[in-house]
Amino acid sequence: MILIFIELLQQLGFKIPSVFEYYSFRMSMAAITALVLTIFYGKVFIKKLYELKIGQPIRKEECPLLGHLHQKKEDTPTMGGILIIFSMIISLVLWMDLSHPFTWILLATTLLLGMLGAIDDFLKLKTKSSRGLSGKKKFIFQTIFSIILASYLFGPYTVQYGQNMTWLYIPFIKGPVIHFSGILLALLVLFWVCVINGSSNAVNLTDGLDGLAAGNLIMVASSFAMIAFVSNHFSISQYLNIQYIEGSGEIAIYLSSLVGGCLGFLWYNSHPAQVFMGDTGSLALGGVIGVSSILLRRELLLAIVGGVFVAEALSVIIQVGSFKLRNKKRVFLCAPLHHHFEYLGWPETKVVLRFWIIGFLLSVVGVLSLKFQ
Amino acid sequence: MILIFIELLQQLGFKIPSVFEYYSFRMSMAAITALVLTIFYGKVFIKKLYELKIGQPIRKEECPLLGHLHQKKEDTPTMGGILIIFSMIISLVLWMDLSHPFTWILLATTLLLGMLGAIDDFLKLKTKSSRGLSGKKKFIFQTIFSIILASYLFGPYTVQYGQNMTWLYIPFIKGPVIHFSGILLALLVLFWVCVINGSSNAVNLTDGLDGLAAGNLIMVASSFAMIAFVSNHFSISQYLNIQYIEGSGEIAIYLSSLVGGCLGFLWYNSHPAQVFMGDTGSLALGGVIGVSSILLRRELLLAIVGGVFVAEALSVIIQVGSFKLRNKKRVFLCAPLHHHFEYLGWPETKVVLRFWIIGFLLSVVGVLSLKFQ
Repeated sequence: MILIFIELLQQLGFKIPSVFEYYSFRMSMAAITALVLTIFYGKVFIKKLYELKIGQPIRKEECPLLGHLHQKKEDTPTMGGILIIFSMIISLVLWMDLSHPFTWILLATTLLLGMLGAIDDFLKLKTKSSRGLSGKKKFIFQTIFSIILASYLFGPYTVQYGQNMTWLYIPFIKGPVIHFSGILLALLVLFWVCVINGSSNAVNLTDGLDGLAAGNLIMVASSFAMIAFVSNHFSISQYLNIQYIEGSGEIAIYLSSLVGGCLGFLWYNSHPAQVFMGDTGSLALGGVIGVSSILLRRELLLAIVGGVFVAEALSVIIQVGSFKLRNKKRVFLCAPLHHHFEYLGWPETKVVLRFWIIGFLLSVVGVLSLKFQ
Repeated sequence: MILIFIELLQQLGFKIPSVFEYYSFRMSMAAITALVLTIFYGKVFIKKLYELKIGQPIRKEECPLLGHLHQKKEDTPTMGGILIIFSMIISLVLWMDLSHPFTWILLATTLLLGMLGAIDDFLKLKTKSSRGLSGKKKFIFQTIFSIILASYLFGPYTVQYGQNMTWLYIPFIKGPVIHFSGILLALLVLFWVCVINGSSNAVNLTDGLDGLAAGNLIMVASSFAMIAFVSNHFSISQYLNIQYIEGSGEIAIYLSSLVGGCLGFLWYNSHPAQVFMGDTGSLALGGVIGVSSILLRRELLLAIVGGVFVAEALSVIIQVGSFKLRNKKRVFLCAPLHHHFEYLGWPETKVVLRFWIIGFLLSVVGVLSLKFQ
C-alpha cells in the first residue's frame, strides 16, 4: 500500500526519497511492523485466549513420561498463530506490491492453510483430545491447494511473467539441471505437493517445545529472504550467476514479516510459554516457507536449510515405520526428535536452543550455497 | 593463514578459485570454525572446569532475593570466556589477513582484556567472594590500553594507511561531523577511553543471566560485521555514500568469529547454564566490540546497537547515584536492569529472550542507519 501511496504523492507533485521503494527498506520495515504488532497486541490477545479457555491437550498415550514433563502446558492457550498471521498480513498490506502475483499467492497460502490449522485446533479443543482433523482430510486439502497453485504457475504466471517454472535447480550445482515437460510435468506437480505438504506438516511436528518452531522458522525465513532479495537484484544475481526472478523481492518482504512476527511471538512463546502457535500457525507458516521455496525454484535447498524440520519429520516416519514393520520395535525413545532428547535428560530450554543453533548453521550453509555452484 | 597458503599454492602453479579470498566466504568460514570448535571442545573444557571447581560466587548482599533465585548457579563453573577466546583466535589465525594491523589490534584487545578478566575471575575464586580486582585497577589497565591504541591510530596507522581517524561520525548524519585536532585530540582520546571502558564493563554487567550477554553480543557483532563488510566493499560503500575503510573486512571476519564463538558457547551457556563466560569473556568480548566501533568510526552507533548493554550499565549508575545522593532511595528493585525484571516476576528465560529481541531490533536499526543519512 505504501507503494500506491508514494505513487499518489508523486502524482500530486511531492518528491519522495526513493529509499521508501527499496526492497531492503521495505524488508526491514515489514519485519519491524510485524514484530511491534505481535508484541503490542500479544498481551490482550493471550488474555482473550485464556478467557476462552483455548488450551492444548497433551498427547499422553504415546510417550507416558511426557504427560509428567509437560503437565503445566495443558493450561497454556494455543492458536497463537492467529496473532502472527494477523501481524504478517498487516505488514503485507502495508509494504508489499499489491499488483504482483507473489503477494497474492503468499496471502492465499497463509489464509487457506491458516484456516485449515484453525479448524484442526478448534476441533481438538471441542473434543478435548489431541485428535483434530484426520490426517487424511488435511492431506487432501493441502494437495488440492498445491495442484491449483501448480496450474497457475505453469499457465497464467509463466505467460504473463515469462519465468519458466519447469526447471529444477539443485543446490551447489550451477544453472538449471532437470527439465520437466509433457507428461513429466505431473512428476513436478507431485513433487510440489510433497514440498508443500512436507514443509507444512514438518513445522507442525516441530511445534512441540516452547519456542522451537518459531525460532527455527526465523532461521529458515531469514536465509530464504536473503536469497529472494539477491534473486531480484539484477547486478548481484548476475555476479552470483543465479537466476534473476522478477519480483522475488516481494517474497523477501513477506519472509521478513514472518521473521518479525515470529520474533514478536517468541516474546510470549519463549520458555515458560504463555501461548502456543498451534496448527493455525505451524501449518500456515510452514506452507509459506514451502511455497516460497517453489517460487524461488529452490525446493531442494529448503531441505538443507530447514534440516531441523526435516529431521523432526523423518524421526516420526522412522519411528512409526519401525514400530509397524519391525514388530513394535522403536528407534527413538520418543518421536518427534525433540522429545527423544528430552528423554535423554536434556532440559527443554537446552533442546530448543541447540536446535536453534543447528538451524542457524544450516541457514548460513544455505546462503553460502549461492556462492558455491 | 589461508591467504598465505593460497599465495603459496598459486606460486607453485595451482589454480585456486578466487572465492576463498572473498571476505564473505572468510566471514562465513570464521563463524563456522569458531562455532564448531566451541561446541566440540566445550564438553571437555567444562568438565575440566568442574574438576578445578571454578564456580562463581553470587553477590548476595546487594539484592537478598537473588541468593534464593540463583542458588543453583553457585556450582556452575565460570571462565568459559577462555573457550570463546580460544576458538576466536584459531579462527583469526586461519581466516584473517595476518599482514593487516586490524588483525593485530583485535588480537591484542582480546588477549589483554581477556587476561585482565581472567585475573579478576581467578582472584574471586581464590578469595571465594564476589570481589576480584578492584574497579580502580581494572579502570587503570583499560585506560592505559586505550591510550596506547589511540597513539598508534593517530600516528603510525594514519601515516601508513592514510585513514584519518580524527573525524567523528554521527549516526543518521551524512559524512564526518566533528574534526579533532591539536589540543582537542585529547578529548577524542578521552572519548575512546570511555568507549572501550564502557563497552567492556557494560558487557560485564550484563553477564548475569544464562545466555544474556552472549546472545546480545551476537546481535551487536552481526550488525557491526555487516557494517564492516560494506565499508570495505568499494561499490557498496560508494552506493551507500559511507566512508570506505581499507581492510575493514578483516574486522568483519573477527566479529563473525565472535558470533560463531558465542553461538557455540550458548550450546552450553543457555538456561540451565553449564558454564558462564565470566569476566574473562565479558571484558574481552566487550572490548573487541568497543575497539571495532572505533576502527570503523562508529562509536556513537554502538551506543544505539548495543542499547541493551547501555541500559544495563546506566541502570547501575542510576541506582548507585540515587542511593548515594537521594538518601538511600532506589530507582530499580535491583540493578543491573535484568535483575529488576526478575524481581518483577519475569522468569529468567523470559528476561533473556526479551532482551535478545530488543537487541535484534536495535541491530536492524543499526544496519538501516547506513541507508538513512
